[in-house]
Amino acid sequence: MTARPISRYPVPSLDAMPEDMRARILEVQQKSGFVPNVFLALAHRPDEFRAFFAYHDALMLRESGLTKAEREMIVVATSGANDCVYCVVAHGAILRVYEKNPHIADQVATNYRKADISPRQKAMLAFAMKVALASGTIEDTDFEALRPHGFSDEDIWDIGAIAAFFALSNRMANMTAMRPNDEFYLLGRLPREKKA
Amino acid sequence: MTARPISRYPVPSLDAMPEDMRARILEVQQKSGFVPNVFLALAHRPDEFRAFFAYHDALMLRESGLTKAEREMIVVATSGANDCVYCVVAHGAILRVYEKNPHIADQVATNYRKADISPRQKAMLAFAMKVALASGTIEDTDFEALRPHGFSDEDIWDIGAIAAFFALSNRMANMTAMRPNDEFYLLGRLPREKKA
Amino acid sequence: MTARPISRYPVPSLDAMPEDMRARILEVQQKSGFVPNVFLALAHRPDEFRAFFAYHDALMLRESGLTKAEREMIVVATSGANDCVYCVVAHGAILRVYEKNPHIADQVATNYRKADISPRQKAMLAFAMKVALASGTIEDTDFEALRPHGFSDEDIWDIGAIAAFFALSNRMANMTAMRPNDEFYLLGRLPREKKA
Amino acid sequence: MTARPISRYPVPSLDAMPEDMRARILEVQQKSGFVPNVFLALAHRPDEFRAFFAYHDALMLRESGLTKAEREMIVVATSGANDCVYCVVAHGAILRVYEKNPHIADQVATNYRKADISPRQKAMLAFAMKVALASGTIEDTDFEALRPHGFSDEDIWDIGAIAAFFALSNRMANMTAMRPNDEFYLLGRLPREKKA
Amino acid sequence: MTARPISRYPVPSLDAMPEDMRARILEVQQKSGFVPNVFLALAHRPDEFRAFFAYHDALMLRESGLTKAEREMIVVATSGANDCVYCVVAHGAILRVYEKNPHIADQVATNYRKADISPRQKAMLAFAMKVALASGTIEDTDFEALRPHGFSDEDIWDIGAIAAFFALSNRMANMTAMRPNDEFYLLGRLPREKKA
Amino acid sequence: MTARPISRYPVPSLDAMPEDMRARILEVQQKSGFVPNVFLALAHRPDEFRAFFAYHDALMLRESGLTKAEREMIVVATSGANDCVYCVVAHGAILRVYEKNPHIADQVATNYRKADISPRQKAMLAFAMKVALASGTIEDTDFEALRPHGFSDEDIWDIGAIAAFFALSNRMANMTAMRPNDEFYLLGRLPREKKA
Repeated sequence: MTARPISRYPVPSLDAMPEDMRARILEVQQKSGFVPNVFLALAHRPDEFRAFFAYHDALMLRESGLTKAEREMIVVATSGANDCVYCVVAHGAILRVYEKNPHIADQVATNYRKADISPRQKAMLAFAMKVALASGTIEDTDFEALRPHGFSDEDIWDIGAIAAFFALSNRMANMTAMRPNDEFYLLGRLPREKKA
Repeated sequence: MTARPISRYPVPSLDAMPEDMRARILEVQQKSGFVPNVFLALAHRPDEFRAFFAYHDALMLRESGLTKAEREMIVVATSGANDCVYCVVAHGAILRVYEKNPHIADQVATNYRKADISPRQKAMLAFAMKVALASGTIEDTDFEALRPHGFSDEDIWDIGAIAAFFALSNRMANMTAMRPNDEFYLLGRLPREKKA
Repeated sequence: MTARPISRYPVPSLDAMPEDMRARILEVQQKSGFVPNVFLALAHRPDEFRAFFAYHDALMLRESGLTKAEREMIVVATSGANDCVYCVVAHGAILRVYEKNPHIADQVATNYRKADISPRQKAMLAFAMKVALASGTIEDTDFEALRPHGFSDEDIWDIGAIAAFFALSNRMANMTAMRPNDEFYLLGRLPREKKA
Repeated sequence: MTARPISRYPVPSLDAMPEDMRARILEVQQKSGFVPNVFLALAHRPDEFRAFFAYHDALMLRESGLTKAEREMIVVATSGANDCVYCVVAHGAILRVYEKNPHIADQVATNYRKADISPRQKAMLAFAMKVALASGTIEDTDFEALRPHGFSDEDIWDIGAIAAFFALSNRMANMTAMRPNDEFYLLGRLPREKKA
Repeated sequence: MTARPISRYPVPSLDAMPEDMRARILEVQQKSGFVPNVFLALAHRPDEFRAFFAYHDALMLRESGLTKAEREMIVVATSGANDCVYCVVAHGAILRVYEKNPHIADQVATNYRKADISPRQKAMLAFAMKVALASGTIEDTDFEALRPHGFSDEDIWDIGAIAAFFALSNRMANMTAMRPNDEFYLLGRLPREKKA
Repeated sequence: MTARPISRYPVPSLDAMPEDMRARILEVQQKSGFVPNVFLALAHRPDEFRAFFAYHDALMLRESGLTKAEREMIVVATSGANDCVYCVVAHGAILRVYEKNPHIADQVATNYRKADISPRQKAMLAFAMKVALASGTIEDTDFEALRPHGFSDEDIWDIGAIAAFFALSNRMANMTAMRPNDEFYLLGRLPREKKA
């Protein structure tokens, strides 16, 4: 099952990559146990690779009023709406791990309205979906709907910016036919001792 | 996690059900090890319950040019398009089991065009999606597009009828907020020895 | 005009049908004066035929807070939205007869918002259309919007289940190119004495 | 049933209208036996009334490669797509009369692909629907698709211009909640002797 | 750049036109300094030409609670939504001139929600867009939403009728591939002395 | 007209920015004569600012089979589809300057099918629009449609990646209500001597 190509485009070998990219990838591999294919597929274009991951980290690793799990919810919900297999599978895994909930990703990817999440999180995803699917219609009232849930303006920027960044990411994955690693499918689905 | 309601509507206890329904449910329980919530949620209306499962069996158990796994692909793809958490999770599990492929359901539910399936199966799902989403536009050319893949007219009826039946099923699940059993999420994701 | 096929699929003769199906059809014929083509077209698949009409009767004949005419309004409105000629023409006729109103079906099929129906009935059809066209977005607020109009939870089930069942029915009719009987077009359009 | 208002806006009496408008309306009344409500509803704005009917006549009465019935098919199909009760009911009646076919209007209004019309007429309606619903996407290939059916460039102008004019008409009828006359519903549905 | 055809259809010369049309066109030419191509393209069909401009003038020149600039805003916003290059460019120019604002047309054509216009004007455009894009869903509440902004029922007719008329106009321009005059692009973009 | 805020979010002063960002902005100012507001609005989040412009430059400044003007066409067409005033106005200006064509941006933003561009460029924009609006449906046939126009696989990556990057950019601009600088509106619209 794993001999299938991971991208419509050529994928460079680790050896052939610039040192900074190789270092980044090896670091991920060490932490995760494997190299997510997005690193390999985007390495075809080093400058875009660097900008992509710098942007990703700026949004996903910064201090925020959103937990890391909440940020992954945004990714999973909007990637589902964009029919992006790579992002649903890969970020679904990360969401399960962060949230320590083996069911949440399948729910959020299919229909966040039916997911086991809080009203605050549903309001967050409603805004994120609007940014993803109809950003031209965002008005002040959309901001106002988030404030009673305790979201600050900076939190709202985070929600919208993550939806916007994965609008880019989903389109790159769909265009390149990026293939999720087999490892993602099971990640976070088993009780802790089995993961060890 | 399991105390959440499985339906917006009251769910009868097994004891309170008519004998034929209880028998059917106990049979499923014995085979699967648990009772899928669709049986309990729809038991609220016995006559509809009986018709629903008679229809389901007529389509999903009959002799057909489609394998059982292919029929589940139709369910999973169209249920994804209809944002139906119950059907994606439950039938995704069945698809994984039938196909002995732990990755296929997540792919098909998100975007069948990117799934590890044959061109014949992609043509099948393209027709099923048209029945699900724009049945008024089906024309003779849609039938003709399937024949080079070896589908007979009876096979095409099966494809369309399954998409049509799950148009009903998805709407019932969405309206009642039907909740998938926890058991489905992991089913078919592990190598065989772990399932034992 | 009547030599045109009533289905893309073969239609069995009454003689060739199983006894229970023939009996059902003869009963309809006696009551209506003709055999609606849906009985003949679906007879191509006896098990599906039986389940289909069992489901139909469970919803359309049961005791309900909805009148029979209101149930047909749901059929006509959602079938119009699904571009289903068979269901609009056949159930439009039934709606006219039940409601003793020769104009209502054309109004409801085209735009229920402009039909000569009550605010309660417009609210009913708004919910039915949401089940038909965007069931994944149904939320508790949709249920709450119906209660001031006097709809019980069981009534709401009926509304949604009828919309769901005809989601199936419309798709089968569209896929098989089911042709409405000529008789339906005029039914319920004339003052009573002319119908005799 | 007839005391309902025919427009959201005031409707002038015949006496109060300018002479040219009254003459036009009386002429229609003499020919049809009643005054179609569009004449009364639009009389609220005399200059628009005059331009509207001048435009209508320029398209619907001119010499053309399209029969008058074909022109009404365009009206009925696009008005169905625009959910316009007035135009579907009124022009449906005219179509039945011109085509001497009691079934055609209900078919064309619901789904022209399933109507008892020629392939040439289906091609005509496909173009008309594109003008009605997605005119920005019309390209030379759309013109080329019509020529093998024998449509000249002037015929194609007629098709598109009728679809365009009823884009206006449907919107006016929807905005004003224009009500079809009761007379239209039955017109053209009965064999000739009954109409007398 | 100007040798490109201004229509898919033949364009008559001024000499060959009926006297009333030539007079009208010469009057426009004198006022504007050039003949807008819509006059030439529609002159292919004299009767439609006359009705079109009569309708246009009835709406755009009448006394109204809407300023002439506001009426052009409706044209520009709905023409943008209909992807009509001719109307966006030509009426964008007129809007800039009337409003003495070189930026407004580009804003309104792209997204009126972000334009430098008043809340009253945004409400006006929201109604106009609903007439343009989903007129079947207009209900009394849409009228009620406009009244607090001071719009009378006659003003609302103007808003809707202009949106409806340009639904026609946009479709004619798209079908004929009507080309905007080069002159329109710069009109109203420069401070007054440069225009002289 | 210029006292209006350029973003829903606070905009830092040049003095308060990190040195690298200030340097970048001053460089742009020197080249363009003003600071495009996107630099100021995104400076609210320095890390995202750096990644955004690194990504932008990686795509828009690299060697490519696409001219710089063609890359701006992609931006303008997809930004129009996304109703993004900032990007249509700002990149429309850049497109006019690069292409030395004062009309092209308004055409491409409204409807690229009607723009004065080559068949090759229309094919390019058709692919870009599919990435922007329906990336999940991209298939091998979409790549194949571009090759007869001389696009290499690397060119196609550029087309898709630019559409993907501006999917992000449009959403950020829409969410923050980013306001285009007044300077952009006239840029590239005048013969060269007037620009001096």
